[in-house]
Amino acid sequence: MAKEKKLVEAITSMEVDFAQWYTDVVKKAELVDYSGVRGCMVIKPNGYAIWELLQRQLDQRFKDTGHQNVYMPMFIPESLLQKEKDHVEGFAPEVAWVTHGGSEELTERLCVRPTSETLFCEHYSNEIQSYRDLPKLYNQWCSVVRWEKTTRPFLRSLEFLWQEGHTAHATAEEAEEETIKMLNVYADFCEEVLAIPMIKGQKTEKEKFAGAKATYTIESLMHDGKALQSGTSHNFGDGFAKAFEIQYTDKDNTLKYAHQTSWGVSTRLIGAIIMVHGDNNGLVLPPAIAPTQVVIVPIAQHKEGVLDKANELKALLSKDFRVKLDDTDKSPGWKFSEHEMRGIPLRVELGPKDIENNQAVLVRRDNGEKIFINLDEIEEKVAETIAAIQSGLLEKARNHRDENTFTAKSMDEFEKILVETPGFIKAMWCGDTACEETIKEKTGATARCIPFEQEDISDTCICCDKPAKKMVYFAKAY
Amino acid sequence: MAKEKKLVEAITSMEVDFAQWYTDVVKKAELVDYSGVRGCMVIKPNGYAIWELLQRQLDQRFKDTGHQNVYMPMFIPESLLQKEKDHVEGFAPEVAWVTHGGSEELTERLCVRPTSETLFCEHYSNEIQSYRDLPKLYNQWCSVVRWEKTTRPFLRSLEFLWQEGHTAHATAEEAEEETIKMLNVYADFCEEVLAIPMIKGQKTEKEKFAGAKATYTIESLMHDGKALQSGTSHNFGDGFAKAFEIQYTDKDNTLKYAHQTSWGVSTRLIGAIIMVHGDNNGLVLPPAIAPTQVVIVPIAQHKEGVLDKANELKALLSKDFRVKLDDTDKSPGWKFSEHEMRGIPLRVELGPKDIENNQAVLVRRDNGEKIFINLDEIEEKVAETIAAIQSGLLEKARNHRDENTFTAKSMDEFEKILVETPGFIKAMWCGDTACEETIKEKTGATARCIPFEQEDISDTCICCDKPAKKMVYFAKAY
Repeated sequence: MAKEKKLVEAITSMEVDFAQWYTDVVKKAELVDYSGVRGCMVIKPNGYAIWELLQRQLDQRFKDTGHQNVYMPMFIPESLLQKEKDHVEGFAPEVAWVTHGGSEELTERLCVRPTSETLFCEHYSNEIQSYRDLPKLYNQWCSVVRWEKTTRPFLRSLEFLWQEGHTAHATAEEAEEETIKMLNVYADFCEEVLAIPMIKGQKTEKEKFAGAKATYTIESLMHDGKALQSGTSHNFGDGFAKAFEIQYTDKDNTLKYAHQTSWGVSTRLIGAIIMVHGDNNGLVLPPAIAPTQVVIVPIAQHKEGVLDKANELKALLSKDFRVKLDDTDKSPGWKFSEHEMRGIPLRVELGPKDIENNQAVLVRRDNGEKIFINLDEIEEKVAETIAAIQSGLLEKARNHRDENTFTAKSMDEFEKILVETPGFIKAMWCGDTACEETIKEKTGATARCIPFEQEDISDTCICCDKPAKKMVYFAKAY
Repeated sequence: MAKEKKLVEAITSMEVDFAQWYTDVVKKAELVDYSGVRGCMVIKPNGYAIWELLQRQLDQRFKDTGHQNVYMPMFIPESLLQKEKDHVEGFAPEVAWVTHGGSEELTERLCVRPTSETLFCEHYSNEIQSYRDLPKLYNQWCSVVRWEKTTRPFLRSLEFLWQEGHTAHATAEEAEEETIKMLNVYADFCEEVLAIPMIKGQKTEKEKFAGAKATYTIESLMHDGKALQSGTSHNFGDGFAKAFEIQYTDKDNTLKYAHQTSWGVSTRLIGAIIMVHGDNNGLVLPPAIAPTQVVIVPIAQHKEGVLDKANELKALLSKDFRVKLDDTDKSPGWKFSEHEMRGIPLRVELGPKDIENNQAVLVRRDNGEKIFINLDEIEEKVAETIAAIQSGLLEKARNHRDENTFTAKSMDEFEKILVETPGFIKAMWCGDTACEETIKEKTGATARCIPFEQEDISDTCICCDKPAKKMVYFAKAY
């Protein structure tokens, strides 16, 4: 037992030090390794397999809504980046600059894409001539670079993997519809696949994307009561189209500007999975994105018939699930800890006694429940339990989020909540950026979003007492 | 008919100007667009969908042979790149250098990865301690940058998409076995999926990868008689392991160096598909990687019942195939030309007369054959025809390759063949780099590979008349 203890003890408890717990999980579950390049991470097989499953399912949802994948260059000439004023101001301070190719100095610097609006715009200005060319519904999966000062695996890194959708439409209405549609695709995906409930809403002027007319966001609540911006969808109006001259001849034979959107989610979602579902035994993965959904651990595997039966079960369950049989020479207890650390949703224990009784034990990763089952029913029972884990995780996350969502009517109340029970705080706001900034300075909490589902908490702004315009979700955030 | 003619005439005939034909196909089939970044291409939906299908099937073959995907940083610090002497000499002249992050100058330059051996080695030196940690069978899908002077879409570009496998093994034998195994995975994939037959062999010392002990290659022959290096697999021995101190404690408790391999294919394969299967009507896609395998073109679609029946067929065929119904208001002839240009393997024509007779017409893209079928049998007939197209393309490509593979016993013969009927030339070689270079200077042909299947053409080197050691495939190449 000494060895097993050691493995478990190696993680800092999340109640003691949440940040350290996060780092421990990321390392011990073998999701990433640090690299020799500051702020860049190596995504190891366990981490990348989660990304692949997430990517495949999200990509299917993009295709089902009519989007097509493309690939744009990773470099943006400085002059191209500068075409849209707000955009360059927002991004230029945090890009990596290529100045030399081989031994030659370039006549114009190239930045490594921090996001690809400018490249898509340049392409669209070539491609779009007529209303028949619209809409363009493109997406790309790639890596982007932002020169961040402080970094943390998945949450904030110099380079990260993401997808960026970029669309062009004939009218402002269609662009707005697309922006909201994709926000909903994200929110549904996060709930149904990642088992993470989202608050949907609009970003304030201060928090919106550089160059956007409106930015919408999905926000989730982590275990420690901090919020995580989990995906954004931007309506650009015709601002970029004017800067890049993306014009089309409409049916009425007049020249019009296109209306554009962009939307993205990134490997940050893996950070959300860790911080929403994880516990003091390590990672907890929702079955829908678990690279291994079921691990079979034979007990006393040297005894005759045990491995044969385990292999038989593996073949049977592999028809519907991603299954692993751990027949290494480690002790069962050690294996339990290891697979718990890696977040495998369901463990099947099978020993000589079980085989004698034609039974097995299912152990749920999410709540530790042990279920004794008849081997004749193993397929149904595993399917049932996997479904229960997936829905159970969502319910647990929603309960946690709801229990940690508070209402504040005064700054005193607001500050007290943040100190005692950090979480989302719903409060009224006058719409003034000055108040938003004051709240941030005083409390460290930022306006996460103006939710679509508004409530009428009070009549006045929590900060300045002037008439309130909107209810806002505030929180400290990653 | 005027419009249809125009579309077809817009392509240069490959007999007139093969390079222009290639460029025309790439543009008219809407595979890529040029970008404002020199040498970088925009891969459009039609092109990217081919890459996705290719990637998915190749990735499955990697997984089936035990490989795991990971993601490494896109930047390599200059000092890391310099750790292996031959490697840095090979790549440093053609890398892009990042010198600034935001407004700060970096203390050490970072290159954008031209290939990731050094990053994998750094990671492996952390991860590998014991024989229990071996083998490591990693792969990554990413984009890489090489600062090329002259570029052509898919064939040679500043940035391109690829996969790079990087493995570490306990013994030299295992590394050699892996190197050959992955070369075979590539060759089988190219034959079975891309319908392109490959010559497998070893690169000469002069042509091998910077830092490798041995490089193996698959070489294919294009329509114009030039060869295309289509994939490579390298055995590094323990050279990189020594430079990066990748050591493990073996079962006998002694410290040993790991043995490594790497292997890659890229979007270049799309170039091969174009130049092996394409014709003067445009692209011809093997069904296995065709984003649309079957296009249904209704004739007189305004007539009652035509579109209904076409939609019914679409639903039926979509069970097993990627099917598109073209119900736009273009003329049938225009649609034919357009879908031929895009290389869709099979066209189904369906008009009022056909419906009356309970029939349809299948038209093969590869050879233009028209097949009248009974609608009751459409599923079987389409399946049969799609299979026939896939195997037909491979056979045609193999015949073309074989008919354009020659034997030369003297330099006169060699040069005559190259001028009159360019293709592969099999010739004997003494093994001396000087002769290889002389042949290249005189003829422009390079040693493509020393094939695994050797033949005994003559006893002496074609260049110097000294005793021959190996038969080599020579050709002019992309």
